[in-house]
Amino acid sequence: MSETTVYLDNAATTRISDSVLEAMLPWLREGYGNASSVYSLGRKSAIALNKARAACAEILGCQTREVFFTSGGTESDNTAVFSAASVGREQGKRRIITSAFEHHAVLEPLKRLEKDGFDIVYLPVYREGIVRPADLEAALTPDTALVTVMTVNNETGTVQPAAELAAICAEHKVPFHTDAVQAFGNVPIDLKNVDMMSLSGHKLHAAKGVGLLYVKDGTPFRPYILGGAQQSGRRAGTENIAGIVGLARAMSDAAADMDAKNAKLLPLREKLITALSELPGAMLNGSREKRIASNVNVSFPGKEGETLVLRLDLMGIAVSSGSACTSGSLDPSHVLTAMGLSHDEARSAIRITMSKYTEPADIDALISAMKTIIN
Amino acid sequence: MSETTVYLDNAATTRISDSVLEAMLPWLREGYGNASSVYSLGRKSAIALNKARAACAEILGCQTREVFFTSGGTESDNTAVFSAASVGREQGKRRIITSAFEHHAVLEPLKRLEKDGFDIVYLPVYREGIVRPADLEAALTPDTALVTVMTVNNETGTVQPAAELAAICAEHKVPFHTDAVQAFGNVPIDLKNVDMMSLSGHKLHAAKGVGLLYVKDGTPFRPYILGGAQQSGRRAGTENIAGIVGLARAMSDAAADMDAKNAKLLPLREKLITALSELPGAMLNGSREKRIASNVNVSFPGKEGETLVLRLDLMGIAVSSGSACTSGSLDPSHVLTAMGLSHDEARSAIRITMSKYTEPADIDALISAMKTIIN
Repeated sequence: MSETTVYLDNAATTRISDSVLEAMLPWLREGYGNASSVYSLGRKSAIALNKARAACAEILGCQTREVFFTSGGTESDNTAVFSAASVGREQGKRRIITSAFEHHAVLEPLKRLEKDGFDIVYLPVYREGIVRPADLEAALTPDTALVTVMTVNNETGTVQPAAELAAICAEHKVPFHTDAVQAFGNVPIDLKNVDMMSLSGHKLHAAKGVGLLYVKDGTPFRPYILGGAQQSGRRAGTENIAGIVGLARAMSDAAADMDAKNAKLLPLREKLITALSELPGAMLNGSREKRIASNVNVSFPGKEGETLVLRLDLMGIAVSSGSACTSGSLDPSHVLTAMGLSHDEARSAIRITMSKYTEPADIDALISAMKTIIN
Repeated sequence: MSETTVYLDNAATTRISDSVLEAMLPWLREGYGNASSVYSLGRKSAIALNKARAACAEILGCQTREVFFTSGGTESDNTAVFSAASVGREQGKRRIITSAFEHHAVLEPLKRLEKDGFDIVYLPVYREGIVRPADLEAALTPDTALVTVMTVNNETGTVQPAAELAAICAEHKVPFHTDAVQAFGNVPIDLKNVDMMSLSGHKLHAAKGVGLLYVKDGTPFRPYILGGAQQSGRRAGTENIAGIVGLARAMSDAAADMDAKNAKLLPLREKLITALSELPGAMLNGSREKRIASNVNVSFPGKEGETLVLRLDLMGIAVSSGSACTSGSLDPSHVLTAMGLSHDEARSAIRITMSKYTEPADIDALISAMKTIIN
């Protein structure tokens, strides 16, 4: 098996940073108490849990009680969507508005709700990969139970006008959820009119298996994972203290590093887009400007993205042909087809996603490899 | 804050063993690839995932495809119960039979289903804390969607006749689920007639935030966590490789250590029961014989279990007054009241649970401390 030496698939997952692992280790070793236990060893875990929650809340600019921890972005998204649907059902509201290129962790719950009688409206995302507020305005009705639109798309890195969408929802008194899994640490998050927001640890240099859900005070909420009274009854199950402490550390690092990271990655993104655009047939997917600094998504119609990924792998370079979550599927990316690409164009895409660890030499290596492969 | 020096609350959670942490660390460090990614770094994670799944299946004596990983025992229980309920609903079956002292991770989903029109039957557990097969026979009807009874109770350690219950269900062609979270590593698990079974990592010296669900081939299944195509579509979300590899290691260790552990703990349990029984007013909760070697649960009517726990904590000894999951609740244990204890008797209980790390000196320290406190 080849060795991956240049890792450019940070939208799929990220390396756990040294500071996060260091923060986690005491809770994987001596600090094993159950945070619900009343004796010393348990109280230490409870204190760590509370400190982590307070740190996350401070970073997000919200109240501590508005934050709780989950097993990851998928569970957070499922919880938000099904909670709003339950509340909507109780109120006789059976319409949910989303975008055509949400993550499957939102779309699959919506498909299930559709079977249960909900009316799901998919807003168009256009060639630039961005939802238009006017489309949301036009789609909103008094029986809308939820609007859920991601802040940053996971395949194209295109930044949605989340604050505007949230403000429209607030005006119409409709709950707004955003999957900010690919956004946090890349763009500022404004929770002003946001009722629920999902985050994932492993996209932020924290561990796999931990995530966060923000639920604004006053937002009716129905828990999804049911059982013990942990986390004020909002998420049952013994808390994963090591994962949670690591997530808080990662969020703190990401917030502190964001500007410097973006200043470093923006020129690398531009260099990469320019260089790949010179290759025969290349087309950039999604707005060039309104995308996070760490994402490049390019199609080479006539080629197979999967083949390009495997050829780059042989050269030690890791990129992807789309979301890791749908890997193995023969269908073209639902994100790119929603943006109007043909199946052939969508299947020829590769996604390159950088992190704070990405260096200019990594991008040079990729450009050189792509020249070899495409020419 | 006092230091916990004698840890006897292993039913709440366990210390991660050195072998488990060692197995986890490479996947928290360099092995961070997403198991769904096709390049080298991702394939390594996929191989580790498949090896872990195969190891778990071999230990359980089942097929690899019958095992998948969750975020813990609570999610496993929720998934099993809601899956069977969905299938039942499709078939017009709306009756679910359980025991009166199941874990809240089973009971809370059942309460929600009850609101949705399901008929939930709670089998009695009697003073000995054991479900009787004849009661199940009498309760089964053709419209039963599920029978879910734990293999070992989490508060009293009493061992249920799970194999007999499972055989009765098989005979009546009713799906049988068992929460084996407190059973695995303490008693042999026989999956012969079991359709679904839940396990939790952190009760087995693995990490918090990982669990397992066994689903027998041919059992209709509806996933609970929805999104990406991970784990053959049975549980969405990027797999927590470190946690999963650790769980496989822990299960392997627990299976290998079980007989030696029980041989060591059984005399300690008997010594402890005998010593505590000599204290004024002491009463053992649940069958003395039909309980796992690691559990002692004793009431001291007139005392407050919570106070005993706090006094022991000041002496560096960690035990509990019941399940950690319901800690903070003022209600007496639903387990003990289901067994016929009065509220006063139930509230005066303490639970002492040992692990492979428990030594005779720990039990001597507890006996000596209890003599001081009670006399």
